[in-house]
Amino acid sequence: MSVAIYPGSFDPITLGHVDIAVRASRMFDRLIVAIAHNTRKSPTFTVEQRVTQAQEALLDLKNVEVIAFDGLTIELAQQKNANILIRGLRAASDFEFEFALYQMNKQLNPDIEVMFMMAGLEHQFLSSSLVKEIAALNGDISQSVPLSVSQALKDYFSKQPA
Amino acid sequence: MSVAIYPGSFDPITLGHVDIAVRASRMFDRLIVAIAHNTRKSPTFTVEQRVTQAQEALLDLKNVEVIAFDGLTIELAQQKNANILIRGLRAASDFEFEFALYQMNKQLNPDIEVMFMMAGLEHQFLSSSLVKEIAALNGDISQSVPLSVSQALKDYFSKQPA
Amino acid sequence: MSVAIYPGSFDPITLGHVDIAVRASRMFDRLIVAIAHNTRKSPTFTVEQRVTQAQEALLDLKNVEVIAFDGLTIELAQQKNANILIRGLRAASDFEFEFALYQMNKQLNPDIEVMFMMAGLEHQFLSSSLVKEIAALNGDISQSVPLSVSQALKDYFSKQPA
Amino acid sequence: MSVAIYPGSFDPITLGHVDIAVRASRMFDRLIVAIAHNTRKSPTFTVEQRVTQAQEALLDLKNVEVIAFDGLTIELAQQKNANILIRGLRAASDFEFEFALYQMNKQLNPDIEVMFMMAGLEHQFLSSSLVKEIAALNGDISQSVPLSVSQALKDYFSKQPA
Amino acid sequence: MSVAIYPGSFDPITLGHVDIAVRASRMFDRLIVAIAHNTRKSPTFTVEQRVTQAQEALLDLKNVEVIAFDGLTIELAQQKNANILIRGLRAASDFEFEFALYQMNKQLNPDIEVMFMMAGLEHQFLSSSLVKEIAALNGDISQSVPLSVSQALKDYFSKQPA
Amino acid sequence: MSVAIYPGSFDPITLGHVDIAVRASRMFDRLIVAIAHNTRKSPTFTVEQRVTQAQEALLDLKNVEVIAFDGLTIELAQQKNANILIRGLRAASDFEFEFALYQMNKQLNPDIEVMFMMAGLEHQFLSSSLVKEIAALNGDISQSVPLSVSQALKDYFSKQPA
Repeated sequence: MSVAIYPGSFDPITLGHVDIAVRASRMFDRLIVAIAHNTRKSPTFTVEQRVTQAQEALLDLKNVEVIAFDGLTIELAQQKNANILIRGLRAASDFEFEFALYQMNKQLNPDIEVMFMMAGLEHQFLSSSLVKEIAALNGDISQSVPLSVSQALKDYFSKQPA
Repeated sequence: MSVAIYPGSFDPITLGHVDIAVRASRMFDRLIVAIAHNTRKSPTFTVEQRVTQAQEALLDLKNVEVIAFDGLTIELAQQKNANILIRGLRAASDFEFEFALYQMNKQLNPDIEVMFMMAGLEHQFLSSSLVKEIAALNGDISQSVPLSVSQALKDYFSKQPA
Repeated sequence: MSVAIYPGSFDPITLGHVDIAVRASRMFDRLIVAIAHNTRKSPTFTVEQRVTQAQEALLDLKNVEVIAFDGLTIELAQQKNANILIRGLRAASDFEFEFALYQMNKQLNPDIEVMFMMAGLEHQFLSSSLVKEIAALNGDISQSVPLSVSQALKDYFSKQPA
Repeated sequence: MSVAIYPGSFDPITLGHVDIAVRASRMFDRLIVAIAHNTRKSPTFTVEQRVTQAQEALLDLKNVEVIAFDGLTIELAQQKNANILIRGLRAASDFEFEFALYQMNKQLNPDIEVMFMMAGLEHQFLSSSLVKEIAALNGDISQSVPLSVSQALKDYFSKQPA
Repeated sequence: MSVAIYPGSFDPITLGHVDIAVRASRMFDRLIVAIAHNTRKSPTFTVEQRVTQAQEALLDLKNVEVIAFDGLTIELAQQKNANILIRGLRAASDFEFEFALYQMNKQLNPDIEVMFMMAGLEHQFLSSSLVKEIAALNGDISQSVPLSVSQALKDYFSKQPA
Repeated sequence: MSVAIYPGSFDPITLGHVDIAVRASRMFDRLIVAIAHNTRKSPTFTVEQRVTQAQEALLDLKNVEVIAFDGLTIELAQQKNANILIRGLRAASDFEFEFALYQMNKQLNPDIEVMFMMAGLEHQFLSSSLVKEIAALNGDISQSVPLSVSQALKDYFSKQPA
């Protein structure tokens, strides 16, 4: 059975992430969307909120599980008997960081394979941070994130000092 | 009448910004230099200081107005009846971010046009943040920013703890 | 009166070029689409064919003229009393070449201004050469070029040896 | 059954290509290495030579088949009931071209998925064209290509005029 | 006598830095590894710790001196009668920043020459920040940094809140 | 004695090349400008013409020798007892190619060191091929190449069919 892990911060999950998850879920028997705690980066949403947001957005995908995790992705993979990591690629991706991360992972565990899936054209320039920047300025993000996330971002920024 | 907006943080305005503003002011009937509050990024200078610095630097340009703004550039454009946004491009620009921003703007308002103007050769590697880094180390920035900004940066960093 | 020149090889004109021309024609009083002979690069279509293709594709734009030219763009601009050059930018653009060209142009004539317009999302990864590669393999290019160009490419490649 | 296609020119196959094929063959039930005729690019080796070279290099991989093909990769995929295309990525890859190709493929057939696998560290800067450049200058390429290819390149360049 | 300066944050020194220092020490009569205080970036290790780490790692290089410095690299060079600055380059380098820094340095002192040395293949994707990210997640960094640094990072992160 | 080699096609030598050679000649006891035959790339000028052009341009540098060479740079270095290769870097450089070339060279001979020198600001966007493109269109290249090269290019292109 092929088990793949799609790791990230998902702070919050965007429609670009959802698209990658949908497509990856068709190619592997099981897909684990693994949301990193990342406490050092002080995320906008708690890991519990981010897990709930992703679970709602991916509810229809029967072979997809959403979990929170702490530590190295490579160790999570071993623990879950997964041998494939999924990463989304956009024209706006930081390739160099992806390469560095990949080489480091390979050195730590040569048996793990990383597969990059390209974002759809309409998501090529979409990122969680850009979405947050627009939401903070009270812009319309309804075409970029799931409905519940759109509402959560509005709530979040309405409580911030101007 | 063609009205263009040149938005940014201008923290502080550099001679590269001035060059773009001079050239853009020749091409459009009216140019609005719009300085974002950007309170979340904790700018070095207050928006009032930045507006004053830009006004002094652009004093000779009769069809240029400097304003502070909050919110989305695209909404400012509608409010000011401007249909053109100006962005400066340098070899050192973050193209991917510019592309993402552009696509997001286009989605929010397809009628706004963004025009990119290339920085002059002598400003290709000049940025507000690099200027601040040099000023913080007590280096000479007199060829990179207007005189009053050069003085303001010296004052700013002389008050910072070493 | 503002006169802009949109120079290129247009071998052949794509819907991405058409989009830039439409948008540029709204911003300037007059737009000249200037098609370079480029005999050294052995173009697929003759300059006459390329001019005809562009004229047909831009027929509805009353302030747009399509011409063939030889020599430096910068000299054409002087001759036509144009002070603005238009260049389309895509994520897939060769920025470095654009920068080099721009600096060379600036050195030859500092009064000419170059403005870069970003391709629409649906044209971000579209280029004349990619279209030709697909057409050569008998692929469907109907969503990438004007109808007459689509037919011309089919004719062209049906006459080539396999 | 998962069937993947790994298309390319393989002119000639390098140890970087072999590495990708080995790793991909572990992840899918069947892998088809599809070598494009590419007659317009005047390859160094005929497609028959390239197929033989790849077959020898991949002999031990029981679920891998090497074929020659002409036309669009996307059509080959349909014909072979494959739903996955494999592309190798190197730091030295032409990402923009990969993105353009991908978007064009997606438009032609949305059901085909492209997965990018990163080259191993030791193959990050290896390419068929660089290997040929070194071989042409009589340099040592034994660590970059299979043994039989190394010999074939030596033969090829010994017959070329200096 | 040729004196070169190899400036940086070295927070902490990696085996990639060590490799560059070893190779540079062979080419110049004297090499000064100059570690910037960089108090504004809140480094992980104090400048004293970083100097000690680098001294231990470079102990065998008789013509290498490790010092802490504050201020502009260009001024340090004048003070030390050095006319060459060494910078390491990786595929993952921020070239644009390097270019900007170089041009700024050149403007401040045209007599200083900057020479870029390429990182070895095994260090191409290695950086201090990536090492810290892995160490923070309790990953194995023993192949990326000197032994004492590996221990220091373990100690550092074991004292941080999860 | 330190001997450095500055290899390239120099087809033709530009003022950017001259600048690098002048600066490198100050740093090493001896500098060999090595001009590759490159017959496969069908250069504009013969290797004899290119050697003469470079010799004239570098006449004042007493420790610089200009030679033609065929074969691998790395073998030339061994033959000349040189241990350093010089490469110029521009914002417009093909870094990936430089990296690939470097890694290949390192693998062939680990004792050779490659040092990259950054082009001056005024030469950042200057290349032999761009100069030729402008000359072919009868543009002014007098600020980009030595006087004799400027004349040679005019002669060359005046004899080409339009």
